[in-house]
Amino acid sequence: MRTSRLDPVVRGALVGAVGPSHVLDTDDLVAGYSVDWMGRFHGRARAVVRPASTAEVAAVVAICGRHGLALVPQGGNTGLVGGSVPLHGEIVLSLRRLDTLEPVDVRAAQLTAGAGATLEDVQHHAAAAGLQFAVDLAARSSATIGGMVATNAGGIHVVRYGPMRAQLLGVEAVLADGSIVSHLNGLMKDNTGYDLAGLICGSEGTLAVVTRARLRLVPRHAHRVTVALGCTSMTHAVDVVQRLRSSIEGLEAVEMMRADGVALVASHRGVPVPAVFRHAVSLLIDVAAHHDPTDDIAAAIGAVDPGLIADVAVAATAAQTRELWLFRESHTEAINLHGPPVKLDVTLPAGSLAVFCDDVENRIRRVMPGSRTVLFGHLGDGNVHVNVVGAAADPATAEAVEEAVLSLVAEHRGSISAEHGIGALKRAWLHLSRSESEIAAFRAIKRALDPGAILNPHVLLPEPGSP
Amino acid sequence: MRTSRLDPVVRGALVGAVGPSHVLDTDDLVAGYSVDWMGRFHGRARAVVRPASTAEVAAVVAICGRHGLALVPQGGNTGLVGGSVPLHGEIVLSLRRLDTLEPVDVRAAQLTAGAGATLEDVQHHAAAAGLQFAVDLAARSSATIGGMVATNAGGIHVVRYGPMRAQLLGVEAVLADGSIVSHLNGLMKDNTGYDLAGLICGSEGTLAVVTRARLRLVPRHAHRVTVALGCTSMTHAVDVVQRLRSSIEGLEAVEMMRADGVALVASHRGVPVPAVFRHAVSLLIDVAAHHDPTDDIAAAIGAVDPGLIADVAVAATAAQTRELWLFRESHTEAINLHGPPVKLDVTLPAGSLAVFCDDVENRIRRVMPGSRTVLFGHLGDGNVHVNVVGAAADPATAEAVEEAVLSLVAEHRGSISAEHGIGALKRAWLHLSRSESEIAAFRAIKRALDPGAILNPHVLLPEPGSP
Repeated sequence: MRTSRLDPVVRGALVGAVGPSHVLDTDDLVAGYSVDWMGRFHGRARAVVRPASTAEVAAVVAICGRHGLALVPQGGNTGLVGGSVPLHGEIVLSLRRLDTLEPVDVRAAQLTAGAGATLEDVQHHAAAAGLQFAVDLAARSSATIGGMVATNAGGIHVVRYGPMRAQLLGVEAVLADGSIVSHLNGLMKDNTGYDLAGLICGSEGTLAVVTRARLRLVPRHAHRVTVALGCTSMTHAVDVVQRLRSSIEGLEAVEMMRADGVALVASHRGVPVPAVFRHAVSLLIDVAAHHDPTDDIAAAIGAVDPGLIADVAVAATAAQTRELWLFRESHTEAINLHGPPVKLDVTLPAGSLAVFCDDVENRIRRVMPGSRTVLFGHLGDGNVHVNVVGAAADPATAEAVEEAVLSLVAEHRGSISAEHGIGALKRAWLHLSRSESEIAAFRAIKRALDPGAILNPHVLLPEPGSP
Repeated sequence: MRTSRLDPVVRGALVGAVGPSHVLDTDDLVAGYSVDWMGRFHGRARAVVRPASTAEVAAVVAICGRHGLALVPQGGNTGLVGGSVPLHGEIVLSLRRLDTLEPVDVRAAQLTAGAGATLEDVQHHAAAAGLQFAVDLAARSSATIGGMVATNAGGIHVVRYGPMRAQLLGVEAVLADGSIVSHLNGLMKDNTGYDLAGLICGSEGTLAVVTRARLRLVPRHAHRVTVALGCTSMTHAVDVVQRLRSSIEGLEAVEMMRADGVALVASHRGVPVPAVFRHAVSLLIDVAAHHDPTDDIAAAIGAVDPGLIADVAVAATAAQTRELWLFRESHTEAINLHGPPVKLDVTLPAGSLAVFCDDVENRIRRVMPGSRTVLFGHLGDGNVHVNVVGAAADPATAEAVEEAVLSLVAEHRGSISAEHGIGALKRAWLHLSRSESEIAAFRAIKRALDPGAILNPHVLLPEPGSP
């Protein structure tokens, strides 16, 4: 069907704002913007609008505000919680054309990136200037800076550098009334009013549309060492991580895998399990430093109670490093081969991490007998990804599994979303991590900045009336 | 005069909430809470209320809300911008009795502190558990955690660890309606809604009253090395700092002084100027690491263009370290001896730092001929403290000097408040660092969370109607 779903007046105004070729409003044209990359969340955009500048974004938001039309901002659409999908027939505001990368300010070690620039573009741009962008995650070739700011993206380097919010020195953004806030001078210390950039970061497009971001860069290190450790239990692994965090300088990544996940990957890749990964829990550690950290790492590991570490292997070549990391990075692919999984991203307090990991599989089996649960994640941050193989094939099973996992997280006072956000997927469960007073404060802030509820109104906050 | 300024009904309610000995409402009793430590800001509290728990704070806030009485939260009252002084006859809400320090969670490297605990108490508490609290500043024996959260305090370690907001894993706070938000489970990754803790941090008591904070701790380092560097110009000093920031691991402090300030201190202390400080600009650098960083520092300094560094001295003993730091830390005392100074705390973008430092004294002399300006500060963060000797003795001169300095900051797109906040002192100048749209967004947030305008209503935001 090629009939526009837009009112002609609105269509005319949008075309006036961004040009006729950037207002897409027929089924065939909007289809690609209406579903997430996993194929789990299916919406139907009323239209897709593709502005090329902050001023054009402001014009589009103002038009939607006048006509009471809800918007879903969309970048690379790599989210995992349905936060950038037009599930309620919203207009998709695609930010991908705002992909300008301004020159790196080497003296300040900063750069300004457009919302539509991909993480990989930013990484390359920083590297070309002899610096490094601190955040890294698997979707780097598609994930955009705007989406990463909006979701406060995490990734594998949070243990050293913090999440996206910690890189953010300021944003340019369009508010719901079409006004533009822009604070991109990149000051490391700036106590002039409320932390608007930090508030917008992680608000999932509900408070503002991010158009540009000022990002800090970190030094590039000449030396990077990868070490794999085997432990006989999760309790041991948690203890090892706590000790190494306080004794190794430049710890950049602390990843965790379990024997079942490693076996799944080995079978998928058709390779044997490396000796160091033949333990209940495997840790993969990256250290980056200006001088070779090998001796410091050996000393730090040597100082840990030997009963806690069953095996150690240091990657001696780039090929060995790649091979070790492939086991971690192939988890998602290996899991997906067995049907659509339920994927939940949670954080546990340090004291509850081991017991949660030991209990969660049993909890899931109560609602999905015979299920297979693969855990991996960023153990340095207490962040566990719970993957239940094939559990998303049936919606009722998926919901029961989600409820079982998130309730267990709540029992331990953990977070039901570590780095993926709440989106559409978890909004009904927000009360498991946040009190009534906190949610009331969130709603007050939302009403204050978006009184017409036009910015991504169906994500993050529970439907009015629910807890 | 011993007559209460409180309405008997209000007085009764407050006494019911906190007990009779913690409602102070006569001139003699409130005097000590009505003026800041410098004696620059003089107010007159209608009363001082001293709750001992979060529940008591909530009760007091609810009473004030019902009766439309404005509150000024107060901790150690060590602020420099009049933000905790009852300049408009507000009720002072003293948080000092909330000084509980909960046991250090060594596994998580975190602790929970009451708002009234001093920085020094937290530092000692962390050290006793083998860890370190990252923030340090001169007022450590009086400054309280609640005040430091409310103002997003900075200090000398921001270059490595960030300001207070970067240490904050969550807060417990009382909102204007008397409700309590509490998020103290200390999760390193937690994307469940808006960053309320980060928003409250730096809001100067205008959005909520902080009662407890969950703070991250960092490892203690076995080795600490202090190095002094002399440079012949500010341009050279800025370049040196930029290079060392990217080549030294564990750079913890990068302080700057100039020849005039060093001379003032030497004369005040009756000691000669150390050879390494006999240059236009002196840098004082601290590095802390698990292994001895002396060789790494020497290599990093050796790699800097030799034309940029005129002199280097490494402190070889604890006494030498103390002596070097005394020159930096005695600046305030030496300056204050010559009459009340105007003190302004600003940040400049890296590219404007040197030219600002070179120009600012001339700008000030246009409005205060013959004035003497001493600059020092945290060069690693672009943060300069501008001290104009004796300029606060005359209010009109003080205002002219403030206007001259802050306008120059604005010309360079700097921040009119790096770490001290806006308070009462700078609210009329907020527009120099923030746009109309930003200030409108701040006002919307303030109205949303404090519709009755009872929480510190006369700080941070400009008076309604002003720019």
